[in-house]
Amino acid sequence: MTVTLSATLAANEEIERRRGAGQRVLHLAFGEAGLPVHPALRDKLVAASERNGYGPVAGAADLRSAAAGYWTRRGLPTDPELIVCGPGSKSLLYGVLLAIGGDIVLPMPSWVSYAAQADLVGAHPILVPPPAGQGGVPDPERVTSAVLHARAQGRTVSSVLVTLPDNPTGRLASSQTIQRLVEVARELDLYIISDEIYRDLLHDPLLPFTSPADLAPERTVVTTGLSKSLALGGWRIGVARLPDEAYDLRARLLAVASEIWSAPAAPVQEAAAYAFTDPPELVERIVRSRRLHGTLAHAVRDRFVGIGASVPTPQGGFYLYPDLSHLRLGGSAEITRILLDDHGIGVLPGHAFGDDPSAARVRVAVSLLYGDTSEERLTALNSQDPLQLPWIAANLDLLSMGLTELSLRQRSPVRELHPALVPTPCHS
Amino acid sequence: MTVTLSATLAANEEIERRRGAGQRVLHLAFGEAGLPVHPALRDKLVAASERNGYGPVAGAADLRSAAAGYWTRRGLPTDPELIVCGPGSKSLLYGVLLAIGGDIVLPMPSWVSYAAQADLVGAHPILVPPPAGQGGVPDPERVTSAVLHARAQGRTVSSVLVTLPDNPTGRLASSQTIQRLVEVARELDLYIISDEIYRDLLHDPLLPFTSPADLAPERTVVTTGLSKSLALGGWRIGVARLPDEAYDLRARLLAVASEIWSAPAAPVQEAAAYAFTDPPELVERIVRSRRLHGTLAHAVRDRFVGIGASVPTPQGGFYLYPDLSHLRLGGSAEITRILLDDHGIGVLPGHAFGDDPSAARVRVAVSLLYGDTSEERLTALNSQDPLQLPWIAANLDLLSMGLTELSLRQRSPVRELHPALVPTPCHS
Repeated sequence: MTVTLSATLAANEEIERRRGAGQRVLHLAFGEAGLPVHPALRDKLVAASERNGYGPVAGAADLRSAAAGYWTRRGLPTDPELIVCGPGSKSLLYGVLLAIGGDIVLPMPSWVSYAAQADLVGAHPILVPPPAGQGGVPDPERVTSAVLHARAQGRTVSSVLVTLPDNPTGRLASSQTIQRLVEVARELDLYIISDEIYRDLLHDPLLPFTSPADLAPERTVVTTGLSKSLALGGWRIGVARLPDEAYDLRARLLAVASEIWSAPAAPVQEAAAYAFTDPPELVERIVRSRRLHGTLAHAVRDRFVGIGASVPTPQGGFYLYPDLSHLRLGGSAEITRILLDDHGIGVLPGHAFGDDPSAARVRVAVSLLYGDTSEERLTALNSQDPLQLPWIAANLDLLSMGLTELSLRQRSPVRELHPALVPTPCHS
Repeated sequence: MTVTLSATLAANEEIERRRGAGQRVLHLAFGEAGLPVHPALRDKLVAASERNGYGPVAGAADLRSAAAGYWTRRGLPTDPELIVCGPGSKSLLYGVLLAIGGDIVLPMPSWVSYAAQADLVGAHPILVPPPAGQGGVPDPERVTSAVLHARAQGRTVSSVLVTLPDNPTGRLASSQTIQRLVEVARELDLYIISDEIYRDLLHDPLLPFTSPADLAPERTVVTTGLSKSLALGGWRIGVARLPDEAYDLRARLLAVASEIWSAPAAPVQEAAAYAFTDPPELVERIVRSRRLHGTLAHAVRDRFVGIGASVPTPQGGFYLYPDLSHLRLGGSAEITRILLDDHGIGVLPGHAFGDDPSAARVRVAVSLLYGDTSEERLTALNSQDPLQLPWIAANLDLLSMGLTELSLRQRSPVRELHPALVPTPCHS
């Protein structure tokens, strides 16, 4: 087992450290939603502040019932008995991996924690790139050969994971690809783990969304949470919908949960029970949030495209995934370091997501551009034209400046010289 | 990996189910503190309800600083950099096991989750009984031979665990035993994991308390939390103090934490940051709590002693550990089933704590006797003579009645006959 601090969290802590030391860093590295708590959720937390019992491991009955309603309203009839809650969907994904056992097929690139969790439970992640132009889903045609190859080597492969829509690419897999993946999963007898934490943040609500659970509810685990859609990352609440009739898997997951985290914080469960009923003021909040995320994601994409980067058009969440290989400044580690050290732009390297380290791809999160205070962020949320707000415009100008410098650097031999390569007259 | 739902949680859910179905069950199976949240903690949670950022994996700076102060005031100088917070000390214990690796020596009996967690991370628990009359600490003299034996078989043994004071026995290991265990741990190069979640609930505050961290701060991990002393089980907050200079272990623990739970819920962290400063009203609350727990633990002990059980005198927390073997009704599973099915008394079997299944020892928690409402529990907390409160007196009467029935059963051949042994004329 070789584990290191989650790349996003480590990068975030490093950027916070530099900012604390007075450095100017544009923080585009962290997947925090960057918006305040809705007052209705604060009210629910406050009202539940007397709740101090451990409660059921699967989660409070009203939360499980609300989560079942959430999926049922989205076309996936769900029994509350199939719902298991956890302190973040991250915990649930870990618990599901441990409960299912065996190796897992992951999209390449994919969220940093999937492969790290697989490593923690002693499983091998099998990385498979998505079909061209897509993200968050391993190419179904390649899944078959990868799984058969691994099995021929004596390995047990039990599951395949998708992220809908995706982090880091911001792309949504097509319905056709999901359909094909489901067929492959059936042929190979794989569980499908569908991380849908960004589902409600699809920029275009008319974009057709297909969950593998819609097609194969008997073998799909869906996870979601409120960290992204309602900006409750710090409250730690996630829910999983287990496959229909998967009572054995449920028992194993509850066993794992009962030995590692018991249950999410009880007052938070109560707030979440309200949120998962889709009340109008929270639906409205999510509509505004996804509009803001989409507007900024596209504006930031324009800046990267402006210096010649290739950037898949983001479709959901608050991420984009530019490829800066054309600058010929090195792979993803080098370009990330150059962006941070020399241009004050903090991003995450593509290799942290399992991508080819020689490609200069980076993951850019736009959600910390909305402002430094809750007031600025709320103003951004409610603005018809957030790009014109002075603090957002200033952030985008800083980004443009940094990127322009970066692109000029390529052409300037003096700036291109790495400090370590400059001859030093003496060691002092 | 064979995992089942944590025995305490499973028993609790079973008893809740029976109660929901209208059965009268005296609930003595669950380690919940059974007291309301102190209003000062609710106020802190409410004040922090806007906190929705992920925050540092190790925990918020003010919480780490407060926890360092907590230990420093108790004679153990602590650098906040050595503190790691988690959603319950259970999570931290799991993370520490995973971060340390290798097999672990446990007291026999000991809290149900230690061995289950070892199993989850692929480690072997090595069970060693305590010195006679003690609990929560493996007999140091036997630890040496057990570890040398395991190592001779090629196993890696990395740690030894103590619970001070103990669950299930309610006993506190003597300073001499801890001193000897520390010597053994040094000789064998073992980490010591000291679970001190019941420390502030020692019934007699003048009882000398020695933590292995006082003697060997360089190799001891101490964990605690607010679930027991301040009845915040459902809020999920724990803290660990890592060994002095253990920066590698800290990095590994943070890596594990960042991939499984990220951090405790942010508003809860703020309330905990306050609690760990030992403010007067919470110190007062804890003083009252331990008095109530002690009073009830002794009263319940008297009932068990009254039917001839052998019961070590409880010294801390809200547990006792009667041995009912003299009734000759079977081992711990049988006596637990008989108590629940025939006498409406829910306890946990000793074998769930790793104890010899043939001994009729059960763990009794007294904390759910304080009342059914917050008002009753608060009244109990503030009462000079809680045993005279009608609902507590009624609970104790029920217990006496059930235990008397149980003890008569032994002497009555008719009642002693197990239903399965009664000849049945035909199968219908």
